[in-house]
Amino acid sequence: MAGSTFGNIFRVTTWGESHGKGVGVTVDGCPAGLPLCEADIQEYLDRRKPGQSKFTTARKEGDEVEILSGVFEGQTTGTPISMIVWNKDQRSKDYSTIMNVYRPGHADYTFDQKYGIRDYRGGGRSSARETIARVAAGALACKILKQYGITVTAYVKSIGAIEIDPDRFDLAERDRNKLNMPDAEAAEHASAFLEEMMTQLDSAGGVVECVINGVPAGVGEPVFDKLDARLAGAVMSIGAVKGFEVGDGFAAARALGSSNNDAFRADETGRIYKETNHSGGILGGMSDGSEIVFRAAFKPTPSIAKEQRTVNKAGENVDIVIKGRHDPVVVPRAVVVVESMAALTVLDLLLMNRCARV
Amino acid sequence: MAGSTFGNIFRVTTWGESHGKGVGVTVDGCPAGLPLCEADIQEYLDRRKPGQSKFTTARKEGDEVEILSGVFEGQTTGTPISMIVWNKDQRSKDYSTIMNVYRPGHADYTFDQKYGIRDYRGGGRSSARETIARVAAGALACKILKQYGITVTAYVKSIGAIEIDPDRFDLAERDRNKLNMPDAEAAEHASAFLEEMMTQLDSAGGVVECVINGVPAGVGEPVFDKLDARLAGAVMSIGAVKGFEVGDGFAAARALGSSNNDAFRADETGRIYKETNHSGGILGGMSDGSEIVFRAAFKPTPSIAKEQRTVNKAGENVDIVIKGRHDPVVVPRAVVVVESMAALTVLDLLLMNRCARV
Amino acid sequence: MAGSTFGNIFRVTTWGESHGKGVGVTVDGCPAGLPLCEADIQEYLDRRKPGQSKFTTARKEGDEVEILSGVFEGQTTGTPISMIVWNKDQRSKDYSTIMNVYRPGHADYTFDQKYGIRDYRGGGRSSARETIARVAAGALACKILKQYGITVTAYVKSIGAIEIDPDRFDLAERDRNKLNMPDAEAAEHASAFLEEMMTQLDSAGGVVECVINGVPAGVGEPVFDKLDARLAGAVMSIGAVKGFEVGDGFAAARALGSSNNDAFRADETGRIYKETNHSGGILGGMSDGSEIVFRAAFKPTPSIAKEQRTVNKAGENVDIVIKGRHDPVVVPRAVVVVESMAALTVLDLLLMNRCARV
Amino acid sequence: MAGSTFGNIFRVTTWGESHGKGVGVTVDGCPAGLPLCEADIQEYLDRRKPGQSKFTTARKEGDEVEILSGVFEGQTTGTPISMIVWNKDQRSKDYSTIMNVYRPGHADYTFDQKYGIRDYRGGGRSSARETIARVAAGALACKILKQYGITVTAYVKSIGAIEIDPDRFDLAERDRNKLNMPDAEAAEHASAFLEEMMTQLDSAGGVVECVINGVPAGVGEPVFDKLDARLAGAVMSIGAVKGFEVGDGFAAARALGSSNNDAFRADETGRIYKETNHSGGILGGMSDGSEIVFRAAFKPTPSIAKEQRTVNKAGENVDIVIKGRHDPVVVPRAVVVVESMAALTVLDLLLMNRCARV
Repeated sequence: MAGSTFGNIFRVTTWGESHGKGVGVTVDGCPAGLPLCEADIQEYLDRRKPGQSKFTTARKEGDEVEILSGVFEGQTTGTPISMIVWNKDQRSKDYSTIMNVYRPGHADYTFDQKYGIRDYRGGGRSSARETIARVAAGALACKILKQYGITVTAYVKSIGAIEIDPDRFDLAERDRNKLNMPDAEAAEHASAFLEEMMTQLDSAGGVVECVINGVPAGVGEPVFDKLDARLAGAVMSIGAVKGFEVGDGFAAARALGSSNNDAFRADETGRIYKETNHSGGILGGMSDGSEIVFRAAFKPTPSIAKEQRTVNKAGENVDIVIKGRHDPVVVPRAVVVVESMAALTVLDLLLMNRCARV
Repeated sequence: MAGSTFGNIFRVTTWGESHGKGVGVTVDGCPAGLPLCEADIQEYLDRRKPGQSKFTTARKEGDEVEILSGVFEGQTTGTPISMIVWNKDQRSKDYSTIMNVYRPGHADYTFDQKYGIRDYRGGGRSSARETIARVAAGALACKILKQYGITVTAYVKSIGAIEIDPDRFDLAERDRNKLNMPDAEAAEHASAFLEEMMTQLDSAGGVVECVINGVPAGVGEPVFDKLDARLAGAVMSIGAVKGFEVGDGFAAARALGSSNNDAFRADETGRIYKETNHSGGILGGMSDGSEIVFRAAFKPTPSIAKEQRTVNKAGENVDIVIKGRHDPVVVPRAVVVVESMAALTVLDLLLMNRCARV
Repeated sequence: MAGSTFGNIFRVTTWGESHGKGVGVTVDGCPAGLPLCEADIQEYLDRRKPGQSKFTTARKEGDEVEILSGVFEGQTTGTPISMIVWNKDQRSKDYSTIMNVYRPGHADYTFDQKYGIRDYRGGGRSSARETIARVAAGALACKILKQYGITVTAYVKSIGAIEIDPDRFDLAERDRNKLNMPDAEAAEHASAFLEEMMTQLDSAGGVVECVINGVPAGVGEPVFDKLDARLAGAVMSIGAVKGFEVGDGFAAARALGSSNNDAFRADETGRIYKETNHSGGILGGMSDGSEIVFRAAFKPTPSIAKEQRTVNKAGENVDIVIKGRHDPVVVPRAVVVVESMAALTVLDLLLMNRCARV
Repeated sequence: MAGSTFGNIFRVTTWGESHGKGVGVTVDGCPAGLPLCEADIQEYLDRRKPGQSKFTTARKEGDEVEILSGVFEGQTTGTPISMIVWNKDQRSKDYSTIMNVYRPGHADYTFDQKYGIRDYRGGGRSSARETIARVAAGALACKILKQYGITVTAYVKSIGAIEIDPDRFDLAERDRNKLNMPDAEAAEHASAFLEEMMTQLDSAGGVVECVINGVPAGVGEPVFDKLDARLAGAVMSIGAVKGFEVGDGFAAARALGSSNNDAFRADETGRIYKETNHSGGILGGMSDGSEIVFRAAFKPTPSIAKEQRTVNKAGENVDIVIKGRHDPVVVPRAVVVVESMAALTVLDLLLMNRCARV
């Protein structure tokens, strides 16, 4: 209830702070009979690991997952699956800079206002390390979805003003460049842009796009638990996300009904499909059998090396320079987090859909 | 669970179809001791009522709310508040056009795929009439929020490509023109544009912006129940919404960290405020004490008078002309629905926040 | 959340007070495709109706149910089913006796303590009329369960010290006598006992037993949502219930392991069964394939005609004589309420069980 | 949803199997600002630890708790508190006896029926070790309740037919004898009885009584989340519990209204109290300000050394002798588990009650 639980049937509960003992997740409601081992999870965690390029923090996190329960003789048993990643890099740093000062763009101030206390070490609960738990659970969800022929694929669509060119789209390229952009040329431009950002002690934002294939029509619950509503809530819960859109999204607000409506057609076998996909694969909050497409807008990393004006806990105006090395952009590492939240959402509603008919 | 319930503490459950006996809502968890009468609710329902301009359906809905429980001697008692609006215009129409044909851009196909049956009369459960229940509950939420000095105000920001001019912004104007645009000149242009749409048998989309004032810092639960995540889920659950953004939203993806971060400052009394509000009043998923600002993108009304290609239930390609009078745009009537979903979200998290500290 | 919602998948939300406009229930999550009409529900409501014998209140309640949504062309559509029973007997009575005085054994005092206000007319929300909503939903649940070969049958096991004799058990007799006792002789004795109670201006309690047949093994979720735990919560939520036991219940606490354990056996076809059923059909919180048996203890009706000592709202000691006609016992009318809560519980967990395996 | 989560505001999620890596619990929604250290939790865990008497298993469990998150500088921060107890005694035993055979009175058969797979080592998820997680969370709940002057105290009321004598009741004695009976003489008799049971290769059941003091009037939510309903569900979810009663419980079913009703009285200061407490401190599902009293009936330990008839997975009739050392009774160790479930329930509803009024 206090916000660390996601999902109704496939229910995920996370815990952990940046510089506490570790971060973890318990998945309750995972169906029994799924082959599962730690390598299945590790594959996804490795995709979000820092220290993979000059644009991500050098912290040696390791981030090795350990499954503590719910798996027996290589299969899920239906009981809760607890997974943990220990925090290895817990050396006592000097937190005097941020201990009593509110970093702009961060949650320091709001945590203090809400709880009267906060774990200020490295962002505490609002650290990006919190996403480890999402990805561990998301990896599990993806594995189940694959059994039903459903795949979830995200990539960086843009960094700052540099956008991928649809004509050069190449998913394999996503895994080749450090920026997770499926367009080598755009990645090169973005790379140069980010180096400039680092020189300027500044940071950039970007957009992640996600495509889900194989979802049968009818997944999602009308009214409040619409598939797009649940996806929006899931993706907006990722730190730094400021916008979400499905299908044509904000552009649809400028379109005409005659062009925005997707015509239904039937092929010679009677199979129904849509000629276009402005809807992004969702109609009336339920999957319509087409590819599901959505985008998330991430703000620039709030931690920058430039001096910034702010206040301290005592209510005094001060200047702050946040020490340490900062990622000039978060979107490349966010790709797998977006996939994870999408997978958790789709799986939860897919299971729920088993109860739609007598 | 099946999607017609919203909220955890202030919990709203809706029911009803377009051409059934009525639509209604039960609010469980409304705090006791609030003065309440039907006029409090009716005021909001009247704002969404159709038939108010040439751009909205002429159906004489009336839409008078009746409170059936939970209020005694003019005050809420803490027990469930059941509210109902009867469907008066239930005359048996000819539904043969849409009975077995899937209207493009509508939920006909997905309902049939999910449940194997659908109430095809006037859209059934996916009709815009479903929002009556949201607005009735939202009116109640707004009344409680006002007791805490919190106001929720939405308006039409754009219709098609016509956007309000910030320099001409005048909230009072919103209630004077039929399009709920707080800019008389923009409203005039939009009106001409919509007349053109009607002539062309087409429709338009638009953007609704919502501003929430008076929310103390700290409302929202970290991780999955962030204030912005919950707002996104709430607003995206409104039919026809395809995008959501808070603060600078998608524009933040192109900004730099140095300009996107809002500097904290303290005035001479020690009160902390932000110099700018790119965050839209939310940091780390909790309100930061600034004005909360978000936007929702609505697609064009899918019901258009133009002939469209589609399929029928039997899987045959057919053409459809949807009979009757169609609204060329939904955003003016959606304004109060957006306010309602925002109010329900903020109130639920405000109550939840009572449990944040020992 | 505030207590008027039951169930996770098959989710029931009730509302209404004794002397408000009516009582009702919304069932969200009812699977689509079930044939349903008002007579299906009315049959159960008629079983709880008052005024059927000299031992139940003479109020002409009628209690006719109206289905307002979720059913189309005689079938459930998967959308919320709203049902209402209007309160017909709302004539303004003289409530001056109980308005400011706390009736012993009733919820008057606790409602006032919790909410600072209460609808004192006829018990308000804590009236036995609240069970109408449970029975309406329960009737629906029973109809679905029957489709899966599951039946739920309750009866009065004892009134005061008068208990049915297992050797004379005859379920058909339950529906013949006014006390719902499946033993004509016991019913006769109980009838005499209750007449005596009325003469003495006093009241009696009793025990209801419930038997559920046809539940396949494996229904119920380990740990907190065990079938027996959920049944206990469901049944103890009925007003006046003070005890719950499954299988041998409290007697098991005095038994030996060797006699309490039920031996498993397999017949020649390999079908597994238990030789005895001390467990009451539940092992480890999951149905074990045997008949499920539980009992609920009801306290004597707290409304008695005898003068009682109590206090008023002002904190003064006063004497109270509760006017009107009082049922000397509640268990006969509670039988169908117990069946309803059992059906709601089993159905919810049966649907949940669809997600147990990949 | 799948049953390993308890509570709405103070939300507890458990995981772990008997012979997996460990058992643990995540508490989400713990209010911030509570002083907390591992010793606070350990104190309760030590009370359930095995190996404390000749009547409990000799397994050297240790059961040392580690807090992994949610506590900073000795205080809770409002973020999830993850606690773990490692399984130390994981040596590979010979499970060939129970691997394919269903032990009578255990969950082996139902787990297999539900999931098609089960972790058969030492009972897996249905082992009594699962209660470690309940007790860890319960210790935390008790600490918070104490801050509000609320205490939760359970003890063994009876073992087999041997019951404590109210006249000899001495709570201090509970902590002196190994059977947790607050009556030295009864404890002595029970001890002799249990030795006899061990000689006979048999086992016994018993009753645990629990008393909660200091709960203000008004805690509990009307209708489905009544305090007694939630307590019943919580306590019945403990393995081996077959019955639950509050106040006079089943005896109330034989009482008369005139004697069962508790008269309200006001003392000279205007404070309202009840002259008797047949209700067990709950009226209409809400605490009435009196002491809350309930009892739970535990069946005899199903693991007995006697040979028993049963079936194997292949559906063949076999005999089984369960090897190893067996506790002849579970109630002494269950005392702290009952306290824990009671504390979790009361705290959750106490926090919920913060939202009862505007």
